[in-house]
Amino acid sequence: MTDNDQLLRGLLDRTAVISDLSQAHAVLSWDENTYMPPGAAEARGQQMATLETVTHERLTDPVLGELVEGLEAAGLPDDSVEAATVRQARRDIDRATKLPVELVEALGKHAARARAVWARARQEQDFATFAPELERMVELKRQEAEALGYDDHPYDALHDLYEPGSTAARLRAVFDPLRRETVELVRAIGESGRAIDDGVLRQAYDEADQERFALDTVTAFGYDLEHGRLDRTVHPFAMALGMHDVRITTRYQGHYLNAALFGTMHEAGHALYEQGISSDYYRTPLESTVSLGVHESQSRLWENLVGRSHAFWEGAYPRLQRTFPGQLRAMPLDDFYAAINRVEPSFIRVEADEVTYNLHVMLRFELELGLIGGDLTVRDLPAAWNDFMTDALGITPPNDALGVLQDVHWSIGLFGYFPTYTLGNLMSVQLFEAALAAHPELPREIRGGHFATLLGWLRENVHRHGARYLPADLLKRATGSDLDAAPYLAYLRRKYAALYRLG
Amino acid sequence: MTDNDQLLRGLLDRTAVISDLSQAHAVLSWDENTYMPPGAAEARGQQMATLETVTHERLTDPVLGELVEGLEAAGLPDDSVEAATVRQARRDIDRATKLPVELVEALGKHAARARAVWARARQEQDFATFAPELERMVELKRQEAEALGYDDHPYDALHDLYEPGSTAARLRAVFDPLRRETVELVRAIGESGRAIDDGVLRQAYDEADQERFALDTVTAFGYDLEHGRLDRTVHPFAMALGMHDVRITTRYQGHYLNAALFGTMHEAGHALYEQGISSDYYRTPLESTVSLGVHESQSRLWENLVGRSHAFWEGAYPRLQRTFPGQLRAMPLDDFYAAINRVEPSFIRVEADEVTYNLHVMLRFELELGLIGGDLTVRDLPAAWNDFMTDALGITPPNDALGVLQDVHWSIGLFGYFPTYTLGNLMSVQLFEAALAAHPELPREIRGGHFATLLGWLRENVHRHGARYLPADLLKRATGSDLDAAPYLAYLRRKYAALYRLG
Repeated sequence: MTDNDQLLRGLLDRTAVISDLSQAHAVLSWDENTYMPPGAAEARGQQMATLETVTHERLTDPVLGELVEGLEAAGLPDDSVEAATVRQARRDIDRATKLPVELVEALGKHAARARAVWARARQEQDFATFAPELERMVELKRQEAEALGYDDHPYDALHDLYEPGSTAARLRAVFDPLRRETVELVRAIGESGRAIDDGVLRQAYDEADQERFALDTVTAFGYDLEHGRLDRTVHPFAMALGMHDVRITTRYQGHYLNAALFGTMHEAGHALYEQGISSDYYRTPLESTVSLGVHESQSRLWENLVGRSHAFWEGAYPRLQRTFPGQLRAMPLDDFYAAINRVEPSFIRVEADEVTYNLHVMLRFELELGLIGGDLTVRDLPAAWNDFMTDALGITPPNDALGVLQDVHWSIGLFGYFPTYTLGNLMSVQLFEAALAAHPELPREIRGGHFATLLGWLRENVHRHGARYLPADLLKRATGSDLDAAPYLAYLRRKYAALYRLG
Repeated sequence: MTDNDQLLRGLLDRTAVISDLSQAHAVLSWDENTYMPPGAAEARGQQMATLETVTHERLTDPVLGELVEGLEAAGLPDDSVEAATVRQARRDIDRATKLPVELVEALGKHAARARAVWARARQEQDFATFAPELERMVELKRQEAEALGYDDHPYDALHDLYEPGSTAARLRAVFDPLRRETVELVRAIGESGRAIDDGVLRQAYDEADQERFALDTVTAFGYDLEHGRLDRTVHPFAMALGMHDVRITTRYQGHYLNAALFGTMHEAGHALYEQGISSDYYRTPLESTVSLGVHESQSRLWENLVGRSHAFWEGAYPRLQRTFPGQLRAMPLDDFYAAINRVEPSFIRVEADEVTYNLHVMLRFELELGLIGGDLTVRDLPAAWNDFMTDALGITPPNDALGVLQDVHWSIGLFGYFPTYTLGNLMSVQLFEAALAAHPELPREIRGGHFATLLGWLRENVHRHGARYLPADLLKRATGSDLDAAPYLAYLRRKYAALYRLG
């Protein structure tokens, strides 16, 4: 073995243990969110905290740091797996070492407190009680940004945790035209005079039948139950307990079909990504997904580009009609397709349609950029929120529960996270169109209920790489392009011009 | 703080972390046995092995050893919680340190191999292929006994792992009269001429109804679903993921009522013990149960002393009849009671009745004592097995699958474990009669479906103590007596003389 081989072996021995501990933590977390009896909550928190401490000790072990330094100095070829492994290990170590322990503890404690205050404030539509908690959280996050370091804007340090290599300046360059043109499209749809009725989705639907249809759909996509499972939870999620065990959950609403239908596709999209990571990277720093934006691109691709497409329902609608004959027998495919794609400005992000969704995200990006940069005070936040809503969507929240208080994210310190939702939307179209260019037969296959070609392309160009490339590099390799809002906007215009008969 | 307080604080800080890691391991194990997708098995094994390694490192940390030594030298009052804590910590540390790492690895590897060979050998009724694997396992277990140390017989070192303080000599003193008088009772029942028909239990029973009845029954016993849950598995078990989270599983057979009915009571009995440990001992070495024998006394008490009693069914049978009217409406209580208590010599331990069960255990005790002591060779094992069966039960296994190959235990190195089943049976009656002496109203309450007095007595005298007392001390404190076969024999004679109309 060369010296580098020995250093790498030492690194991988140590990161393998860290991988196992992280996965054990994920098992505890999955159980906590599914089947754990309620009286075990406190003990579970203790178990998870101890696993975090033990993992932190391993990540901050000076020997590991020295191995990484040695490999960084070794001149590994830039594009090699080894260099990527070292880069990812460095990211993990820096996250664990750069923040003072006191700051981590203060953030953890304040998050628990602020979340509880937020929940009450939302219920009582009372922003004033939440404001001091949010002020303190913003202050802590600014300290975190300083500790992590950044070149341009403190926001970059926080956003980079979720989207490596992305910055506020890059986001702005993409978001500015996206916002402008989305607002125009929303206005055109509003002025089209065409009203779509989605009452068909709001009938009584048997939950067991919903579950069977959803599970059939996502296993047809390629979701592998040998390495996954579907359970029910109030808040749906996808969670990797390692690449060999990627589980999803769904909620079933007895009188609304969308949650189970598109929610399951969404979570399965996340899970397909994790299930597709190359087993070459098992127990190495590269076994994880590369960013939340790329993650979201996969969930959105299956939920929207496939699941809300006309081609998909040409094949799947007869099956849905057979599952729910009483509700759907008399409903033509095109009316059903219109119902699941209805556009309507609304107050709540998580209920927003494909067109308006990104405006909700860009609103949050603008405001948190102001908060972290010091250009916006918490006191001015509700007014800023409502102004943006009025400008962009033409509606004004009647209270803060339908406005600034609707999301949990800021209360628990998630700043720099929201933009990844829109990055995912943009990349989902860029990736889908690259797959389409390589495989023009895709629409025909999707119509026929066959998804192997699409999944194969995603596996090859996205999934298998794990954390091997930075998000921007991954996108460039897969599509030949940089991040770009134009394909997404063109997709929206095409789809919704037809649906709303725009000129 | 005194010096002792500081030492104790240091000890408890460290054992708390070990407790969390052990409980995390239990969560992974529970998931592995219930909902884990099959393709995750190898990765799960890796995660659990890493948790074991990390836990082992903590247990063998020299600082922990020094804290225990300091406290052992400090002259803590013998009967204090502190002394018990130190004693239990010492047991845990010794287990982790006394065995050479090479022996632990050899045992682990050989267990995996021997278990696979055993499974095939059982299927093919071919002891000869299993014999060399068992010989190697016996050799490794003898090495383990030497490493652990013992005063009298190497078997004691192995048995003590499951039943602290118990020895082969003590077992023999109790088992000899138990065997003699059980054989007599079995003979008398056989010669009684009375045949009990248990066909009523072997009808079609809806599994969801079985589950509802079983769950209603064990929650009435006091099994707490705030801190537990019931799931389905092929091999039922009870598992503590900490004292605040004690879960049970059951299997439902569509054409046999016993598995779900008495299996659920049995596992709930185990779980009630763990749920009842004092929260004073949370995250300390005393938070665990004291021995497998005492554990089994709790499962057997609820399964047999309550669940197979006439008093219980006087109250519960109408409910069972309402649940299964088609099968039970015409069946009188006394015939049902006889069916669930039918005695019949049989080959398979896990299907044996209350009377013959202990003979199966004592058979295994005799043989494994011979193997570990060097007085019996593996080659002579099948014949020795069949001779015992013929002598004790009057039946001779027609093949080794119904004889020496039936249990998995020896293949995975569980020697010294079987006797705890009979210890549990014996103690279940000693404890139940002590509870009855304190609360003569118990039969009336059980008849009425009220179990709080019984559970309260068990909580007070057994459960809450965790690992505070050694098994023999716990039994003495609770009953005033030492381990004794006489109460169990008297119970059997009373119950079965009535059922089989013995003279």
